[in-house]
Amino acid sequence: MKKLEHVCNSVLRRIRPKSLEREKVLELAERMKLKVTNAMSESGLDAEVRIDGSVAKDTWLSREADIDIFMRVSPTLTRDELETTCLRVVRKALKGYRIIERYAEHPYVEAWVEGTRVNVVPCYRVEKGNWKSATDRTPFHTEYMKRHLDENLRDETRLLKKFMKGIGVYGAEIKVGGLSGMLCETLSLFYGTFRNTVTQASDWHRSETIDVERYYEGRREEVGQLFDAPLVVIDPVDRGRNAAAAVSGRRMWEFVAASRAFIQKPNLRFFYPTVPKPSDVKQLRSTMARRGSVLLLIQMGKVDAVVDILWSQLYKTERSLRNLLQENDFEVSKSASWSDEEKCNIILFELASAALSKSKRHLGPPVSRREESEKFLKKHLSREDTVSGPWIEDDRWIVEKLRRNRSAELLLEASLSSGGRAVGVAGRVAESVIKCGFKILLNEEITRLYRSNRQFSNFLCSFLKGRPGWIDL
Amino acid sequence: MKKLEHVCNSVLRRIRPKSLEREKVLELAERMKLKVTNAMSESGLDAEVRIDGSVAKDTWLSREADIDIFMRVSPTLTRDELETTCLRVVRKALKGYRIIERYAEHPYVEAWVEGTRVNVVPCYRVEKGNWKSATDRTPFHTEYMKRHLDENLRDETRLLKKFMKGIGVYGAEIKVGGLSGMLCETLSLFYGTFRNTVTQASDWHRSETIDVERYYEGRREEVGQLFDAPLVVIDPVDRGRNAAAAVSGRRMWEFVAASRAFIQKPNLRFFYPTVPKPSDVKQLRSTMARRGSVLLLIQMGKVDAVVDILWSQLYKTERSLRNLLQENDFEVSKSASWSDEEKCNIILFELASAALSKSKRHLGPPVSRREESEKFLKKHLSREDTVSGPWIEDDRWIVEKLRRNRSAELLLEASLSSGGRAVGVAGRVAESVIKCGFKILLNEEITRLYRSNRQFSNFLCSFLKGRPGWIDL
Repeated sequence: MKKLEHVCNSVLRRIRPKSLEREKVLELAERMKLKVTNAMSESGLDAEVRIDGSVAKDTWLSREADIDIFMRVSPTLTRDELETTCLRVVRKALKGYRIIERYAEHPYVEAWVEGTRVNVVPCYRVEKGNWKSATDRTPFHTEYMKRHLDENLRDETRLLKKFMKGIGVYGAEIKVGGLSGMLCETLSLFYGTFRNTVTQASDWHRSETIDVERYYEGRREEVGQLFDAPLVVIDPVDRGRNAAAAVSGRRMWEFVAASRAFIQKPNLRFFYPTVPKPSDVKQLRSTMARRGSVLLLIQMGKVDAVVDILWSQLYKTERSLRNLLQENDFEVSKSASWSDEEKCNIILFELASAALSKSKRHLGPPVSRREESEKFLKKHLSREDTVSGPWIEDDRWIVEKLRRNRSAELLLEASLSSGGRAVGVAGRVAESVIKCGFKILLNEEITRLYRSNRQFSNFLCSFLKGRPGWIDL
Repeated sequence: MKKLEHVCNSVLRRIRPKSLEREKVLELAERMKLKVTNAMSESGLDAEVRIDGSVAKDTWLSREADIDIFMRVSPTLTRDELETTCLRVVRKALKGYRIIERYAEHPYVEAWVEGTRVNVVPCYRVEKGNWKSATDRTPFHTEYMKRHLDENLRDETRLLKKFMKGIGVYGAEIKVGGLSGMLCETLSLFYGTFRNTVTQASDWHRSETIDVERYYEGRREEVGQLFDAPLVVIDPVDRGRNAAAAVSGRRMWEFVAASRAFIQKPNLRFFYPTVPKPSDVKQLRSTMARRGSVLLLIQMGKVDAVVDILWSQLYKTERSLRNLLQENDFEVSKSASWSDEEKCNIILFELASAALSKSKRHLGPPVSRREESEKFLKKHLSREDTVSGPWIEDDRWIVEKLRRNRSAELLLEASLSSGGRAVGVAGRVAESVIKCGFKILLNEEITRLYRSNRQFSNFLCSFLKGRPGWIDL
């Protein structure tokens, strides 16, 4: 396995920060921390301001540093004070920088300072275990990792992070549903090396459990009762929390499959994937013609929600509309959501066909169930939309009915025209649909958007290809 | 329930043979018995010739008498002698009458004498229980019923038979898969009256068990282990036999459903159904257009088999081809077989659509199964017919493939061109297909046959209507 070591060393050389970059980042972090500290004391707010996250733990990647400033305020503050008073002070401290308000599990502020992202996050200064808000654990994670990660493990963590970024499973934000930096650190701590992490991950099972602090040693069955998730990583500072609760099955298994592939054939491209150029419209047309399926795209305008909420609302809407289509017998090959996170929001379906047969077979109750049979007969015998039957096959009633919805386009059109809450469209998306309307585009109608929006064309190409890039290495 | 009694009395008046008809039938039976007896002794064959069946038991219906002559030969005769020597003698005895050789579970001869069907059936003269052929039990059934059915029960049997004929569930022959005359007698004996029979049948369950001789009293669980059938009627002269083994689920449940309907709304039409006139071609076209489905008809020539075998071969072929269509994702609303029992054999499918989408989603193994996943990836990654993927959804691999068979017509055409044994077409049907060919007709192409063949047009109309006639009473 010299090849694997070779690839890892070559990655490590690139991602381990050099002293000059390190100094610059740490200087910036200290400067921002001071700004926040000063703003807090000026406002008379008592807070412990500290540098947290990967910069504090020294697990960040060269040229990809994020600076996390945490302000630990008194637990006597109300949730509302935390969210409004604190954020007001933060905004004041960051005056002059580009600021975006974010929402993870609770609000924070993101600023871009000298090309680096700086997150300023309020949380409560609580004792371990007395958590009042989701981010209260972070300073404890920082201290825990600082205590347990030596230089070697920090490098192995960097490798794992870069690998996950390369294969697209890194990041706890809802858009990704992948593994967080803190999970990478915990896995490295548990498995020792990057190489061992991917080797072990290759054999992960459903509800694979990683319990680095051995909280549940000898009581493994309790874990299954407490946590129901594709991946369970017991939080080393909170035995009651699955730190991997946000990891979707898809991302977990992509990590597993990519780990297997990497071990079999180590390649730098797992860490540094090539992004294929989107094909031209002619090629796009021939790709679509070859598979003969229907691309159905719902285009919506601005959704009034912070980014995390936006994605969760898009995904929920995608799931609901997919269910709606499937319940009406449309075969959905695949679906996805896309957003420029500003004014263009898209849900895309690939359907085997957008038009269904006029009538369909409908399965009734077993004849032995007398009351159900009577109800079934009463319902279907005299109805206009019964085209044939009811008859008996084996022991069941069958009837042939006219379909209510034969066109996927009309079905979605009708469901969305009133916002779509009734079919499970998420609230903010429904509001947008009512306020700004929506468009449904089919096949050829999508090419204009494809031509005009490069981000979207990238998305559509990878949707059509439909396989992770590393799978072809 | 005066209405029910009224209907039954009125039916009974019509189906109870008057003395003149009775004398005529009995005289004819005796005459035929004598003919067979003489032919047997002339041939030096030792046989007990007797009148069996409904005429002997006096459970026959006016104007619908069948005469069954049984010849009980020595059990020392081989099966081959029973089938050839005996039938030769029978044919000689029936010289001059129209003769058809039949095959139930073993061969017999059917002759038409003065407008009445006469069946002459060879069997073995064995002790009860030492059955050598399937028909050996019949004389024992005759004696048993003669012993147990009084005049009242014989009338109740007649009512039940006529009811079953009216709703289309009477007859053990393969074409029907219904209830035999002997089952009607057993049910009447068990339930006492026709009225009680339909009342009780309304509440039958799956594997309903009727054990008139109480062979399994206190050991009911044994019945479930011995017999697996929709309906179990323990043969009163053979505790090891389910006399209802030939009853299909469909016919049993049609009987149950019709019984319920009759009790709720007694009507003469259950016994004397009106046969609707087939609609004209214009109406046929509009019926077909309304449902928008596809009628696909396979027309075959003469099949070299006696009637019972013919039907079993047609049904087997229908099942196999239906499976073939369904395995290839065609939605079969309904299928049926039809035959003029001479030169025209037909299998008919109603399909939601005869053409499918070009590509389809294909579900792969869970990612956790490492070896299966590897095989799956190896198989689909480089294949020409993979149009998209593989990708991971939740915990499974998915891939989008081109379909092999998009046209139902071409699929059947290709499968039948070599006879179709490979897809489960029954042997004699396959022979016919090879020798005489076959035609596949779609929708409009069927109208010519519809116009030219009255029997077929009746069949097609009831296929399209798709509901038992009594259901609309």
